[in-house]
Amino acid sequence: MSEWVEYADQLTKQARQASRQLALVSGAQKQRWLHRAAELLVVRAEEVVAANQRDLEAAPGYGLNAAAIDRLKLTPQRLKSVAAALADVALLPDPIGEVIDSTVRPNGLSVNRVRVPLGVVFFIYESRPNVTIDAASLCLKSGNAVILRGGKEALHSNLALHRILTDALIETGLPEHAVQLVQTTERAVVGELLKRGDRIDVTIPRGGKSLIERVVNEATMPVIKHFDGICHVYVDESADFDMALAILKNSKCQRPGVCNAAECLLVHAAIAETFLPKAAAMLHAEKVEMRGCPRTCRLIPTAKPATDADFRTEYLDLILSIKVVDDLTAAIDHIDAYGSHHTETIVTTNLPAAMRFTAEVDSAGVIVNASTRFNDGGEFGLGAEIGISTDKFHARGPCGLRELTSYKWVAYGTGQIRE
Amino acid sequence: MSEWVEYADQLTKQARQASRQLALVSGAQKQRWLHRAAELLVVRAEEVVAANQRDLEAAPGYGLNAAAIDRLKLTPQRLKSVAAALADVALLPDPIGEVIDSTVRPNGLSVNRVRVPLGVVFFIYESRPNVTIDAASLCLKSGNAVILRGGKEALHSNLALHRILTDALIETGLPEHAVQLVQTTERAVVGELLKRGDRIDVTIPRGGKSLIERVVNEATMPVIKHFDGICHVYVDESADFDMALAILKNSKCQRPGVCNAAECLLVHAAIAETFLPKAAAMLHAEKVEMRGCPRTCRLIPTAKPATDADFRTEYLDLILSIKVVDDLTAAIDHIDAYGSHHTETIVTTNLPAAMRFTAEVDSAGVIVNASTRFNDGGEFGLGAEIGISTDKFHARGPCGLRELTSYKWVAYGTGQIRE
Repeated sequence: MSEWVEYADQLTKQARQASRQLALVSGAQKQRWLHRAAELLVVRAEEVVAANQRDLEAAPGYGLNAAAIDRLKLTPQRLKSVAAALADVALLPDPIGEVIDSTVRPNGLSVNRVRVPLGVVFFIYESRPNVTIDAASLCLKSGNAVILRGGKEALHSNLALHRILTDALIETGLPEHAVQLVQTTERAVVGELLKRGDRIDVTIPRGGKSLIERVVNEATMPVIKHFDGICHVYVDESADFDMALAILKNSKCQRPGVCNAAECLLVHAAIAETFLPKAAAMLHAEKVEMRGCPRTCRLIPTAKPATDADFRTEYLDLILSIKVVDDLTAAIDHIDAYGSHHTETIVTTNLPAAMRFTAEVDSAGVIVNASTRFNDGGEFGLGAEIGISTDKFHARGPCGLRELTSYKWVAYGTGQIRE
Repeated sequence: MSEWVEYADQLTKQARQASRQLALVSGAQKQRWLHRAAELLVVRAEEVVAANQRDLEAAPGYGLNAAAIDRLKLTPQRLKSVAAALADVALLPDPIGEVIDSTVRPNGLSVNRVRVPLGVVFFIYESRPNVTIDAASLCLKSGNAVILRGGKEALHSNLALHRILTDALIETGLPEHAVQLVQTTERAVVGELLKRGDRIDVTIPRGGKSLIERVVNEATMPVIKHFDGICHVYVDESADFDMALAILKNSKCQRPGVCNAAECLLVHAAIAETFLPKAAAMLHAEKVEMRGCPRTCRLIPTAKPATDADFRTEYLDLILSIKVVDDLTAAIDHIDAYGSHHTETIVTTNLPAAMRFTAEVDSAGVIVNASTRFNDGGEFGLGAEIGISTDKFHARGPCGLRELTSYKWVAYGTGQIRE
């Protein structure tokens, strides 16, 4: 056990040192690293694909299904698009050093809130090796040192990718330990790292609910949490039906396994009789299983009765719960009681209804007349995201570069003292 | 024990309900409450002073010293200035609803980051009844419901003040439970409240280190921490001596018991011989005990030798540790190794030195040519502060209205779906 204590000590010590150096690195230097890493990914694709092959061979032994194996797989073509993503991050504005706000006080003191890196990020993620590159690029571009801990099924791929990232760091004169990978699948190391709140500024876990809960319970530092997305589409009395059907279809069916996919449809009672049969036809064609409230089941004979638990479930599958609500207030009440404060959409042509919905619904993303699927770093214009926060503290919703920063107060005086 | 579980359940349930209503309250309504509370404080001063008298009589039994008893004391005059502070908060811009940033995506989706309240704040503080009013006003102005837990020595004063705040809430049509006071000194209630991360969005503890550590250990929600202020004044080779002496005197002596007072003087070796005797004369006149490194002790015969522990101590008293450093790098290294990342000042006329110091020193407040005492919400122009964060996460340094907020993403479309 003490071996892992020592390893965590070493990783965090090196990360702290790298972090101090990174705070002084220019934007141009970080860009050079991003471009060089992108080049090496393409040049050394063979090395990465060979390492990935080892993971792919072991994957069935880990019980991975076909979809998970596909996410694990790296090909020269896929490495090219990972490299292209690095170049995109290089183009994003550098967040560090931005003066967020500034004021000159009556005594002449110039007070500036200046954006700085958080410091050291500990990132725990699923077995998708492309995430290794994405996360490293976002952390480094925002001036943070990062300790990466990918899923065990991707270890060999991650080791190969990490070698490339490190070589690019050394070649471009950046601290070698700015990007570190936990080079073992031993779970005890995670526990030891979570104890180092003295050296790690934030932990970002991505993956299943049980992983996130474990991290929250053990962590001695702040955690950016990414919990359930029980997202709603509410079709208001005044909705354009064609728009509502398109938004519902996209929210539910375009990629049902992700957190910003819709899990529940709420329909205003005044239009339930006309709208629900159309919705049912579309959902039936899309092979979506419907679970409805009693009023829904009367209007859609193929819907199964929904239990209370259905309305609290993130299906992540082609299943939709459906409820008829008396009015906008009842829709908001339902979202407040059963939702997870992730993403909700209203389809409406009524301005006061849109204003009430956006003001009263307490979710990270509140959307008017568009798919729930837009609550995403890329779609919201952050460039890329390291995760989606379901917290209200520090960062909420998609977390891009700026959400990986803090600030300090820098004041310039001419000898001011306090009276 | 289950009595306290129930009480914590009731307080947090009421706070959540109030919080939901508060998110919709207009700025004008919040201003009316602030003004009405200010009026009632003056009109009902007698009732408050009588309650305060009970606390003052019990104070010696709690072992409070004269300074603490003075901080506990309320007079009609003091209540007038507390009321004036409420009027000041009323004048501050309302942070809620501000569009922090906004972009129209290529597909026409309008994406807005909108400032919203954090939700429910649990505030734990020392036995200073004026803080009850300050904290309530900042939390409510920023749209948060608050649960206040003041020091036991101020219970009767706080109960009287809370009655006034509640009456003002009812009179102005705001939710009665927007401001709640824990009406018992039973410590178990604090423990139960710290378990309610499901209903409390943030806990802000103010007081001694042991209290803050207890809260951090027990809390199931984020905590805005306010730890030590081991603040430094670094006098550079190029400093104007008169300015340096004035800043040192103000930083150390103006109010030695507060967190942004200086605890350590660092002096560039090239000027140690000329500057330190002048500094010693000033410090001697101000009755400051000096504890120096060997080089300091050679130049200031009245200085005692400083131990390593001295350089890690927040004296909060008229004691100063002093160290001669070889250069700016050594000064920054010392601050990094011994400081608490709170507030550091450089006195210099050299631009590159100022630029390096502000870039490399990783503290909440980094100040050039002014007193460390300026790291304060009022002095930095936040209007008022609920505390000073020594974290880098969410908020750093003085926490005013804006630091008590989060945001949500509000997107307006015309039927957009994701490709």
